Amino acid sequence: MIGLPDHVGLNAAGDRVRILDQSLLPNRQVYLELSALEELVEAVKALRVRGAPAIGIFAGYALYVLACQIEEGEADDFLSRLEGLGETLNQARPTAVNLSWAIGRMLGVARENQGLPRQELLERLREESLAIHTEDAAMCRAIAEYGLTLVKEGDGVLTHCNAGEIATSRYGTALGPILLGKEQGVELKVFADETRPLLQGARLTAWELQRAGVDVTLICDNMASMVMKNGWVQACFVGCDRVAANGDAANKIGTSGVAILAKHYGVPFYVLGPTSTIDMACPDGAHIPIEERAGAEIGELWYREKMAPEGVKYFNPAFDVTDHSLITAIVTEKGICYPPFTESLANLFREGEA
Amino acid sequence: MIGLPDHVGLNAAGDRVRILDQSLLPNRQVYLELSALEELVEAVKALRVRGAPAIGIFAGYALYVLACQIEEGEADDFLSRLEGLGETLNQARPTAVNLSWAIGRMLGVARENQGLPRQELLERLREESLAIHTEDAAMCRAIAEYGLTLVKEGDGVLTHCNAGEIATSRYGTALGPILLGKEQGVELKVFADETRPLLQGARLTAWELQRAGVDVTLICDNMASMVMKNGWVQACFVGCDRVAANGDAANKIGTSGVAILAKHYGVPFYVLGPTSTIDMACPDGAHIPIEERAGAEIGELWYREKMAPEGVKYFNPAFDVTDHSLITAIVTEKGICYPPFTESLANLFREGEA
Repeated sequence: MIGLPDHVGLNAAGDRVRILDQSLLPNRQVYLELSALEELVEAVKALRVRGAPAIGIFAGYALYVLACQIEEGEADDFLSRLEGLGETLNQARPTAVNLSWAIGRMLGVARENQGLPRQELLERLREESLAIHTEDAAMCRAIAEYGLTLVKEGDGVLTHCNAGEIATSRYGTALGPILLGKEQGVELKVFADETRPLLQGARLTAWELQRAGVDVTLICDNMASMVMKNGWVQACFVGCDRVAANGDAANKIGTSGVAILAKHYGVPFYVLGPTSTIDMACPDGAHIPIEERAGAEIGELWYREKMAPEGVKYFNPAFDVTDHSLITAIVTEKGICYPPFTESLANLFREGEA
Repeated sequence: MIGLPDHVGLNAAGDRVRILDQSLLPNRQVYLELSALEELVEAVKALRVRGAPAIGIFAGYALYVLACQIEEGEADDFLSRLEGLGETLNQARPTAVNLSWAIGRMLGVARENQGLPRQELLERLREESLAIHTEDAAMCRAIAEYGLTLVKEGDGVLTHCNAGEIATSRYGTALGPILLGKEQGVELKVFADETRPLLQGARLTAWELQRAGVDVTLICDNMASMVMKNGWVQACFVGCDRVAANGDAANKIGTSGVAILAKHYGVPFYVLGPTSTIDMACPDGAHIPIEERAGAEIGELWYREKMAPEGVKYFNPAFDVTDHSLITAIVTEKGICYPPFTESLANLFREGEA
């Protein structure tokens, strides 16, 4: 079994979800233990736990912890109670499909086993949450291996937002090839977009890569054009929150801009993510809901004082959709998909069924 | 004579340069009176005064104030002393050509009038500094009028960094058509990039436009792609720090990225600036020196605490070059130049000589 990192999991007593609070990095490493529904929802909304795969893993554990709290007398209502809890948790963030995917998977296990005694049913749910986590780690390893075949020693790689270990399981998705390459002696030079407004690139990606000993240079998002023009980037690696059936990929706001720059400068642009991120029921990017967050994140958060005039209007989308025409390939744990994505993505799932 | 705004000028006694400290906006409106060479250089380096035309205006006044301080006994050395002071001031920031342009103009007046009694010579220098300022205001008005012909009521305009009144004289360059339009009842919807790392868009552009009653929405730089994709932008207006003879335009870092997005989405991209910003001695963008600033501006400035891990590497260029192929037109006080810019820009100067 693959060792799981400890940034999301169950606490020692097994009755709470334990997470590294990502909102406090890189200055403080604080772990939280959460069990109340409101706490769990708040942790997702406030990005204490973030990254599409990590949100899925978190949701699995959260649903198990919540299931344990359902009173024994409510046996008949167990399933409908759990479905209600899952529905509330699912509404915490709309864009990443992993949240609803993991909740659906946990509810499926609950439905299949609803005839079992409560303790056995809970044990099945606990096993399922661990399976989601373990499988994610294995998927990340496979994605890292496929991704590493796309670059070579000394290449420059630009990444946006954070899709490393703390956003997933071990290795991460977009950072997977970089971290695996480091282990195998394939040194890459990484340019990390700071990723406004929440600074995941500065606070998380730069922190993770620096700890791993990777050569990382932090830039503002608007410097990516110059870095590419200078010839310093041979590949862009980004994660994804939801990929539509045609290959349109929702990811952190600004990803589509990076893809357009990459196309302009002739740099390959790769989207990395597990197949659980691919939503075959979603025909294209226009059908992906985009979360809009508070404007104060732009003008006030992090700062010593306000950095915009009082009362100014903001537009603060958390994600954008990168058109499939801008994506060189989508790297999954089952292999590398090239255009036309409508075929190559569908094949992933057909093979899975075979 | 056109009324000049008071964000850069001489103090009442006429012996110091008085500026609005732009580094403290939008929270505090503080005026500084500067006379020592080190103070004047620091004000440029620390962006207390910024914006290519404003730096030129500032340099004119600064050279006059410095000239007044040259001891009477040093008569023979007056010109070489002034040239030395101009050279030091000129090195404060390398990219904007207006700094050296204004210094060269002041030194030219000093050379032509070096035979005059000191007081008369100083008076000529004072008049020249005022002329630079007054001419800039007239140029901005002309640029605003030309620029306004490129948009229509209700259009969305995206701008990057700040090229408004405080970066120039009245109206500004990139913001000129917007402010003039407001006066004439032509309402435009502006999207202002916050412009990392120094936040000129959030702190200055949003503040200026809000004060003028313009409909302005503040976004992070990485949101420009989504705003354009949504069809909300009919034109991009940006300023410039130096335009090469082939039309390549240096402006605030990130401008080239906006231009690439605009081309991708089919949005016209306009560079607005006075002819003093056009450097016909510079054949192309590769010959424009790009200032690189301290990395701490990315990870530490403005913040309550550090937002990047200790010791991380930074790349922090202050400007980038937008390739002429990405520019729809360059709007000057003498008219609108279209490609091929090598011809249209050269014509501007030939007409000037005629």
